[in-house]
Amino acid sequence: MRILLYRGDGQVGAWAEDVAHALPGVATIGWQEGDTLPACDYAVLWNPSPALLAQLGTVKAVFLMGAGADAILKFGDALPPVPIVRLGDAGMARQMAEYVAYATLRYFRRFDEYEEQRRHGLWAPLPVYAREEFTVGVMGLGKLGLHVAATMRGFGFPVRGWSRTPKEVAGVDCFAGMDQLDDFLRGTRVLVSLLPLTAETSNLLDRRRLATLPRGAYLINVARGAQVAEPDLLALIRAGHIAGATLDVFRNEPLPAPHPFWDEPRITITPHISAVTLRADALRQIADKIAAFEAGQPVDDIVDRNLGY
Amino acid sequence: MRILLYRGDGQVGAWAEDVAHALPGVATIGWQEGDTLPACDYAVLWNPSPALLAQLGTVKAVFLMGAGADAILKFGDALPPVPIVRLGDAGMARQMAEYVAYATLRYFRRFDEYEEQRRHGLWAPLPVYAREEFTVGVMGLGKLGLHVAATMRGFGFPVRGWSRTPKEVAGVDCFAGMDQLDDFLRGTRVLVSLLPLTAETSNLLDRRRLATLPRGAYLINVARGAQVAEPDLLALIRAGHIAGATLDVFRNEPLPAPHPFWDEPRITITPHISAVTLRADALRQIADKIAAFEAGQPVDDIVDRNLGY
Repeated sequence: MRILLYRGDGQVGAWAEDVAHALPGVATIGWQEGDTLPACDYAVLWNPSPALLAQLGTVKAVFLMGAGADAILKFGDALPPVPIVRLGDAGMARQMAEYVAYATLRYFRRFDEYEEQRRHGLWAPLPVYAREEFTVGVMGLGKLGLHVAATMRGFGFPVRGWSRTPKEVAGVDCFAGMDQLDDFLRGTRVLVSLLPLTAETSNLLDRRRLATLPRGAYLINVARGAQVAEPDLLALIRAGHIAGATLDVFRNEPLPAPHPFWDEPRITITPHISAVTLRADALRQIADKIAAFEAGQPVDDIVDRNLGY
Repeated sequence: MRILLYRGDGQVGAWAEDVAHALPGVATIGWQEGDTLPACDYAVLWNPSPALLAQLGTVKAVFLMGAGADAILKFGDALPPVPIVRLGDAGMARQMAEYVAYATLRYFRRFDEYEEQRRHGLWAPLPVYAREEFTVGVMGLGKLGLHVAATMRGFGFPVRGWSRTPKEVAGVDCFAGMDQLDDFLRGTRVLVSLLPLTAETSNLLDRRRLATLPRGAYLINVARGAQVAEPDLLALIRAGHIAGATLDVFRNEPLPAPHPFWDEPRITITPHISAVTLRADALRQIADKIAAFEAGQPVDDIVDRNLGY
């Protein structure tokens, strides 16, 4: 079996080493702009160029090195007519839960304020927030969202969830569809986005919807920056309606140097690290899915091009 | 029934209100320096004076408003010959677990470094630490320690525990006694103290023992400051052996203004807020224990004056 390994940033060396462990006996091949792709069975890639996509019509499936399909689906009709498979979890759910737990506890226990006090040599216990008033609202109830919701339930926070289609999750107050979005937002103190980026979720968190959150709410975005209308978020923070935001994703990454987010201390910025792809975990998952393809069995996480994820 | 309510800081008003809910029909009485204590059944107190202690020989039991008994046991032979009962949990275990989870995730996911980068407008993903190399070592395996250990297991960290007497805890590698302390420390990356302050634990974490931790280890102290030899900790941080410390407790509180800890950015300082006594939870627990005393049943969390907790 021959597998194409490709990354837009050229960093395929470590992936090739790990393929040797996860898929022993498989030959990996590379590709560069201008090359003609040799025959291969599967492609494992991230950020392919149009010239590469145009040559992928003969592989049995394309595996993405991440959970988000938005960066490849933007090619639309130029995509090869073969299954595109995204990562289902591969260690990402646990990392996401860590990030969201950290950011939520930071606000709930007022650690952000204690750090500010500490910088000024100030010793001053602050009043304690009530857990019942810290409802965590998780947008997107796929594998990642469910794990985040369960983790926050474990800490005793009230948890609600919002998804495109109705779901039932034990211990989580579930809302679905655009009709119930405002109700979901009205009762959410800490809003967490784990949504895929699609035509429907682009700019979903605009001024009106962010203002529907109760005064003093927080935003944690670990999904895609383009879901948030950035100037609207900034205006609502400056107006004191949103108390703070912890953002791992932005419309343009790296976040440009003169972006106004850098000047707003109530916005915590991390450089898209909430869940990095763990190569060994990812390749174990891809190896299992290749085995399923070869055996003619159903394969999880095939991207639905109409839904956009 | 009559209950004495007393706090060294005088703040008993809110406690009296909550007693009315937790123990309906019970009369609360106060005491001030110079008073003769009227007859009462139980005392609920924090930081009593010697003059008050001398008059408590006739109550059926003294309940402390916190989990630590060190501040009252220091009176030694001046203590009244009645049971002294500390709080067993009363919402503190959950708060401790939040604090320890927050501080551990901060180090493991390098959020402290990302905040520093963010202050300088820097966007730079850092290498990821391996979870297997982040063993959390919990000192003290009482109610609080067990809950903290379980929470950190839930995040997938290797967890080990150390206690005075041997214990068996599922999923936790247990060590006991002074003989096994060095072995425990040698494999601990994040050291968490939840120990009571006793003659044995005072200055337990001195230069030699802190140096037994592997290079790059972290200390989280949510127990009592006097367990740590503060100049030794500072020296080991400055030498780069200890990578950082998150301290909620100090030998002298509030931490004095000219203390060198304030000048060391690798020491995170919070003003003894890791677990505040939640009055309603505490009084529910005290009400249950009073019912047990009255019924002649066994009561949990009676302080052992020989063990010191």
